[in-house]
Amino acid sequence: MPRYRLLIAYDGTDFEGWQRQLEGSETVQGAVEMALAQILNEPVNLVASGRTDSGVHAEAQNAHFKTTKDLNHNFIRSMNSLLPESISVLKVWLAPDDFHAQRSAISKTYRYVIHNSEIPNALRRRYTTWVRKRLSVENLNAICEPLRGEHDFKSFQTSGTELKSTVRTITELSWKQLEPDLIEFRVAGTGFLKQMVRNIVGTALYLHKNGGSASEMLAILNQLDRRAAKTTAPPTGLHLHRVDYPPELDKKCREL
Amino acid sequence: MPRYRLLIAYDGTDFEGWQRQLEGSETVQGAVEMALAQILNEPVNLVASGRTDSGVHAEAQNAHFKTTKDLNHNFIRSMNSLLPESISVLKVWLAPDDFHAQRSAISKTYRYVIHNSEIPNALRRRYTTWVRKRLSVENLNAICEPLRGEHDFKSFQTSGTELKSTVRTITELSWKQLEPDLIEFRVAGTGFLKQMVRNIVGTALYLHKNGGSASEMLAILNQLDRRAAKTTAPPTGLHLHRVDYPPELDKKCREL
Repeated sequence: MPRYRLLIAYDGTDFEGWQRQLEGSETVQGAVEMALAQILNEPVNLVASGRTDSGVHAEAQNAHFKTTKDLNHNFIRSMNSLLPESISVLKVWLAPDDFHAQRSAISKTYRYVIHNSEIPNALRRRYTTWVRKRLSVENLNAICEPLRGEHDFKSFQTSGTELKSTVRTITELSWKQLEPDLIEFRVAGTGFLKQMVRNIVGTALYLHKNGGSASEMLAILNQLDRRAAKTTAPPTGLHLHRVDYPPELDKKCREL
Repeated sequence: MPRYRLLIAYDGTDFEGWQRQLEGSETVQGAVEMALAQILNEPVNLVASGRTDSGVHAEAQNAHFKTTKDLNHNFIRSMNSLLPESISVLKVWLAPDDFHAQRSAISKTYRYVIHNSEIPNALRRRYTTWVRKRLSVENLNAICEPLRGEHDFKSFQTSGTELKSTVRTITELSWKQLEPDLIEFRVAGTGFLKQMVRNIVGTALYLHKNGGSASEMLAILNQLDRRAAKTTAPPTGLHLHRVDYPPELDKKCREL
């Protein structure tokens, strides 16, 4: 059966996350599977690189599905005309049989965008998180430095999923001033635990606010206990920015 | 009675425009007046620089109101905590008695943002208008050149408001490539007729698509007839960017 890979953008505001749930819940997976079933005239199981929580956005979620049908370049237009405006299919590839959106992924990059201003702004609210107190990206970078590299991130995992290992590698991590009132936290890694990015951001903001430093962050990391970490940052500022696959597998994906 | 000036940003998506209407309509004016009445404990009439249509956004709408109460710097926080997330008060000034948000305005600037891509994008949909066909900003600039300066813009006025004169002056007008898939039309002038910016954008896009040029635009302008102009561009891409007042009046406004 042919296997297809999708690149999907979505505005997570009005969805209860990626994962299909009980009837009546609006989820991204549910909406995309419904459009697929309508076009392909058969039930389809869509597998994403990973779930995103309620309210989290995706600039480039990756997913795959199998179908008995052969698709052509019209498929992407049909999908986008059936999908709600809050979900767009950006690309479609015919994927090799060994492509698996979740298991083949080797890296993910998230952006967390903060509107840092004394006054909130209606036009920023949807895709950023508002923080009133003036932030220093230098300070935030220093606080987060201990998280770089391979660690057991158990302290930053929200419970709910049983995992064999909570060891992950953070390959990139930076706080950057994008505009005078916009700050971006960008983090890339081999994989992320449940709400790990939001727990890192929440903890970094908490430490920044309370005069904490890298040593407190290191202590929290070393405790391997969720209760050690601080608040979970809200989902509105979080965007799944990209998902990477091995170059040789990527090359075998053929865009329709 | 003290007079106050407000700088207001709003996401127009879920509003039926600026102007207060019959009960049951969600309008920006209605929502701001309701918050004002709650804080000031008296009915308030809010006067804006001008109306915006349903779905149009404002980065910096200006408005004024009179009240018997003296306001201090806490007022802006109270307002923003009462207002829905889609409206923010960005600044408050104590204004001189001769400040009138509409009549004192000497210039307005609008931005119309187009997402120019073969594929729509859920994360662009809210604040841009999607145009599939590849656009050339050089071409669009050339087409719009005849609109610069003082003209009777009757052809670009949507009927509905009786005006003494439909002569206006466009002081700035430019199409600019902001990003590979983002185009901005920026227009400033002494004032704008009903849906004038959207009618200009709609006509420019129509002429661009159909091989038209500056001479067709000039002919449409000279016909002084709305039927000569083409489609009205959708409101989603339109943002009221700024409103200017005479510098001497601006200087007499004292920020709280």
